[in-house]
Amino acid sequence: MVTLRDVAKEAGVSAATASLALNNSDKVNIDTLKKVQKIARELNYIPDARAKALTKKSTKIIGLVVPEINNPFFADLAQAIKMKLNESDYSIILCGTQNDPKEEKKYIDMFRSGMVDGAIFTCLTEVNNSFITELASNHIPVVYIDRIGDDGGIIPIVKSNLKDGGYQITRHLIKLGHKKIAYIGRKDEERYAGFKDAMLEFGCEINKDYIFDKYHAFESGVKAGFMLNNLEDKPTGIICFNDETAIGLMQTLIKFDFNIPKDFSVCGIDNIDVAKYYSPSLTTIDIPKKKMGKKAAEILLKLIAGKEVEKEDYFINYQVKLIERDSSSKLE
Amino acid sequence: MVTLRDVAKEAGVSAATASLALNNSDKVNIDTLKKVQKIARELNYIPDARAKALTKKSTKIIGLVVPEINNPFFADLAQAIKMKLNESDYSIILCGTQNDPKEEKKYIDMFRSGMVDGAIFTCLTEVNNSFITELASNHIPVVYIDRIGDDGGIIPIVKSNLKDGGYQITRHLIKLGHKKIAYIGRKDEERYAGFKDAMLEFGCEINKDYIFDKYHAFESGVKAGFMLNNLEDKPTGIICFNDETAIGLMQTLIKFDFNIPKDFSVCGIDNIDVAKYYSPSLTTIDIPKKKMGKKAAEILLKLIAGKEVEKEDYFINYQVKLIERDSSSKLE
Repeated sequence: MVTLRDVAKEAGVSAATASLALNNSDKVNIDTLKKVQKIARELNYIPDARAKALTKKSTKIIGLVVPEINNPFFADLAQAIKMKLNESDYSIILCGTQNDPKEEKKYIDMFRSGMVDGAIFTCLTEVNNSFITELASNHIPVVYIDRIGDDGGIIPIVKSNLKDGGYQITRHLIKLGHKKIAYIGRKDEERYAGFKDAMLEFGCEINKDYIFDKYHAFESGVKAGFMLNNLEDKPTGIICFNDETAIGLMQTLIKFDFNIPKDFSVCGIDNIDVAKYYSPSLTTIDIPKKKMGKKAAEILLKLIAGKEVEKEDYFINYQVKLIERDSSSKLE
Repeated sequence: MVTLRDVAKEAGVSAATASLALNNSDKVNIDTLKKVQKIARELNYIPDARAKALTKKSTKIIGLVVPEINNPFFADLAQAIKMKLNESDYSIILCGTQNDPKEEKKYIDMFRSGMVDGAIFTCLTEVNNSFITELASNHIPVVYIDRIGDDGGIIPIVKSNLKDGGYQITRHLIKLGHKKIAYIGRKDEERYAGFKDAMLEFGCEINKDYIFDKYHAFESGVKAGFMLNNLEDKPTGIICFNDETAIGLMQTLIKFDFNIPKDFSVCGIDNIDVAKYYSPSLTTIDIPKKKMGKKAAEILLKLIAGKEVEKEDYFINYQVKLIERDSSSKLE
């Protein structure tokens, strides 16, 4: 176990200076600060969280970074986290990146400056992972939700089995007789891997005209609707990255006078409230967002208090569930 | 015009000390700080915003305080504000109070500490108005959305004509033949005043069994559904505080096997996206939330930059519009 003294010795400074440097204090000159932080990273120094919690000025605020603030999935997740944190007198601030890594980086810098006691990141990008790892190593505890880190186990991950979600929803359409299935989402992601697995297992061909990459919001669904309308040889089943995309898509297809599910069986993933009440109601995959939010908040509070987090809580992969509704039906 | 020097003189300190005190600096002892701030308030001292913007450390972050983070109305409002702020490289942090003034106070304190360059408050409570006025007078520019201040004109207000909204939706039901109309919302608010005006104007009696006070979220709508189900003499028309409440109510009434609109004509206020796609689609009042968010952001950016805000922009009351859909129909 590398100690603060090891870092200080290697950097040729006192333990007090090393501590200040690791806490980004402006009492240390910037070159020393950078040097100490670099050595800490190289030595893989992990500060004693308990000691840190005791000495650090607490703000009683948690930062929650989400890709889209107006997607009900994240609003519900935020609400679940907020409910759990409120029990301990913590507040959250919700930071929306609009899927822009530059926006995310701004929030990371803001968190580094001591504005929050801990942070939860939910965005499916990996661009800023090294900055977040540095944040978690030297500044505040961090928990990931549905995000994969490359930090060697510093940041606990609470996720849902989205690969199985992609698999289950694809199998659902195949069992209804669909073979020509479109995927409107992201190719670099678990859901797509599950889709591919199911298509392969049941001997369905993946038509690259039916694969839409980087489509993952309401507006993308609208855009995909226009593109599908222009396709000569249309798919009969459509899987969307999330319910928001599916609703944008259905709205557009209905405007073009298509019937859902007769002309297209459309499926989402997430199971936001509106999926149930939309007309037609949306077949989707239920993600246990309340459970995930609560668990992530629990783990973060433990880390902030300097308490031990159990090993199995460093990687949690919740099961997901198919919800069959009116937007998908047997191929006629 | 009261100057900094006037405040300093009255407090018996130097202008520099007065300035530090007004910026909540920890370089001033707490008694002096309090004394200076008290005198500044008494003299109604308004700092030179331009000078302040130039000397203050900018965080490029705006705080947005909303009562419910998982109400799509506020998510859409937040999105509109974010879009406008992004043009100027500003980020927002979204702070949800769950309608709890104590939560709101925590965010006010957080903003006082220099965490943000400006703030927008959208919660319909007045409990913390004096703290927000102090925040706006001495620390950062503030804009209100749909909130009434008692600050003597320091904080610009961007609102919509909710009183007319309450009036229009009530008149809509009365014209459909309804006389027994319930109001599920808040009695201390504009919408209710508009409801009362219309009821009076068209000679309809207000039955106090039909007035539900402090009902303004999805769960309240559910609760109201149970209570209406138990009422012997039921209303035929129901006006809800917002669409979320209306959806909670409709969901519950449908579970009790009532038909909407045959058994009850139900109306909301806000016109969130789901109102259109819900089954039955919801009659409601359209609030121009995008326009309001954009305008509030514009005004705030001007204040932060120390630019002059036009007098008429200190109180904007946007028109609202009735949207007739399937959830309301002629009384049979």
